[in-house]
Amino acid sequence: MTIEPWVTFVEIAATVVFAISGVVEAVRKQMDVIGIFAIAFLAAFGGGTVRDVLLDRRPLFWVEHHEYVWLVMALAVIAPPLLRLGRYRPTRWLMEATDAVGLGLFSVSGASMAQAAGMPLIVVLLMGVITGVVGGVLRDVTCGQIPIVFRSRSPYALCAVVGCLVYWSLHSVGAKPWLELSLGAGVATGLRLLAVGWGWQIPEWPRKGGG
Amino acid sequence: MTIEPWVTFVEIAATVVFAISGVVEAVRKQMDVIGIFAIAFLAAFGGGTVRDVLLDRRPLFWVEHHEYVWLVMALAVIAPPLLRLGRYRPTRWLMEATDAVGLGLFSVSGASMAQAAGMPLIVVLLMGVITGVVGGVLRDVTCGQIPIVFRSRSPYALCAVVGCLVYWSLHSVGAKPWLELSLGAGVATGLRLLAVGWGWQIPEWPRKGGG
Amino acid sequence: MTIEPWVTFVEIAATVVFAISGVVEAVRKQMDVIGIFAIAFLAAFGGGTVRDVLLDRRPLFWVEHHEYVWLVMALAVIAPPLLRLGRYRPTRWLMEATDAVGLGLFSVSGASMAQAAGMPLIVVLLMGVITGVVGGVLRDVTCGQIPIVFRSRSPYALCAVVGCLVYWSLHSVGAKPWLELSLGAGVATGLRLLAVGWGWQIPEWPRKGGG
Repeated sequence: MTIEPWVTFVEIAATVVFAISGVVEAVRKQMDVIGIFAIAFLAAFGGGTVRDVLLDRRPLFWVEHHEYVWLVMALAVIAPPLLRLGRYRPTRWLMEATDAVGLGLFSVSGASMAQAAGMPLIVVLLMGVITGVVGGVLRDVTCGQIPIVFRSRSPYALCAVVGCLVYWSLHSVGAKPWLELSLGAGVATGLRLLAVGWGWQIPEWPRKGGG
Repeated sequence: MTIEPWVTFVEIAATVVFAISGVVEAVRKQMDVIGIFAIAFLAAFGGGTVRDVLLDRRPLFWVEHHEYVWLVMALAVIAPPLLRLGRYRPTRWLMEATDAVGLGLFSVSGASMAQAAGMPLIVVLLMGVITGVVGGVLRDVTCGQIPIVFRSRSPYALCAVVGCLVYWSLHSVGAKPWLELSLGAGVATGLRLLAVGWGWQIPEWPRKGGG
Repeated sequence: MTIEPWVTFVEIAATVVFAISGVVEAVRKQMDVIGIFAIAFLAAFGGGTVRDVLLDRRPLFWVEHHEYVWLVMALAVIAPPLLRLGRYRPTRWLMEATDAVGLGLFSVSGASMAQAAGMPLIVVLLMGVITGVVGGVLRDVTCGQIPIVFRSRSPYALCAVVGCLVYWSLHSVGAKPWLELSLGAGVATGLRLLAVGWGWQIPEWPRKGGG
């Protein structure tokens, strides 16, 4: 009851931030307004769309909430000139923080949909991560780049995995829905913020020498 | 009754032109015959396939009209040597004109399918544009390029949007099906031809200086 | 009865080999562990997933056999350091041979699913090839490369086509299921091995001069 408006607010904020990440990338690639909208759309809705297609859910979530599409369309027109003006440029920290909240919310909500569809654990985790990160993957591939989430050693998808695990564990022991969702999303978001704040790096295999 | 054969003719012509755009791109990238067929297939059928998957329509339209797949297959074998001979090279104008007709027909037919599925306006427009342009997007991404429809400032997707809007407006006021479809497609095609003929450019935000 | 365990064994072997091809590519692109898993997942399951979505089959085959996802996840962690040690590097021949077996098995099983869904011949062939090669296509595109299966003139998709044709012909004359499947897969695999062994090349259209 009292959590609903807050979730809607976060969902809109996350959609906006994911869309802005698309606008920024498209502007950098000197795309026109159609390209800017398309990349913003892919970044904001790509993950949820792939999840819905894989789980065979209809209507797609951006068909159900089609006001979000208008929002992204408005952003594609309004954001580029604003981004050009230094003073309105969203600070990196504000972007990272909202993105972390969006990652947590999107991935745990994706996991809960897979759970509701009766999927096994590994598929629940996969659907969570897909919902959270595939938008950025499609954005990068369409912009002709290797997806940043696969290259950057800063933990991103891993935070989503842990958050979905927390959600799944709480769900398995029969916790209340609002508790398992908010704790799962909170853990994913918190881990992501810590990862950015402390500059965590995924350890890598030595590539040269050795043997 | 009398419009059917004409629509089939335009549909085939558009499929051929879209497929040829794929053949040209694949040959430029020095692909083999499999690659040429795959890119031609993506260019010709990619938009309609993504639309059908998003709307959950089965059978897919190239399953229903599987003779079109044979056509694209034949093109992938026949077109490359013909393209190499200067005298058979389709003129740029013939290509542009047929492409414009295909854009109009594909996008308005896509919009009408979304309309028939009870989608809201913004989704009707999106499905129309997706049907018209996603084939080219998949062609370009698979060829390792940023999609031309997102970069070129020549209006293309915008023409499809206007055509779908015309279709939707006529449908809302209860026009006859053949009228709303042909006027919508006609407007999209006409605008695209004007855009190419007059060299229209989408205005862009100044990128350097200013504030 | 007696063929089942053998099919399962080949399926697992093929999944592993396809996944390793993803690991190798991701490591070459210096991706982190998430990227390595994602590319391995795409390479191993991409073809079957696209087939299942196009045919509207649920559950997806990696949801049905979710133990294979754990397997790919384990590979993404274990394979990179093993690959770095020269002595454990799978030989090119072992990789090619298992890949050929996987190509045969995956494409003929994809063709049989399309057949069971009542598809016409050309769609049966397409679904077979899609199942066999789209994993590699998605792997390459996500890694920012033009798909090798479209560039290399070594027959790969063509072997799958011939194998699916053999399967389809035997099915049409009412052969026993195990016979049509194993002969189809065997022909695809055998052709692929011959193609690699003898260095067969798809003839190409002369690109320069002439006309």
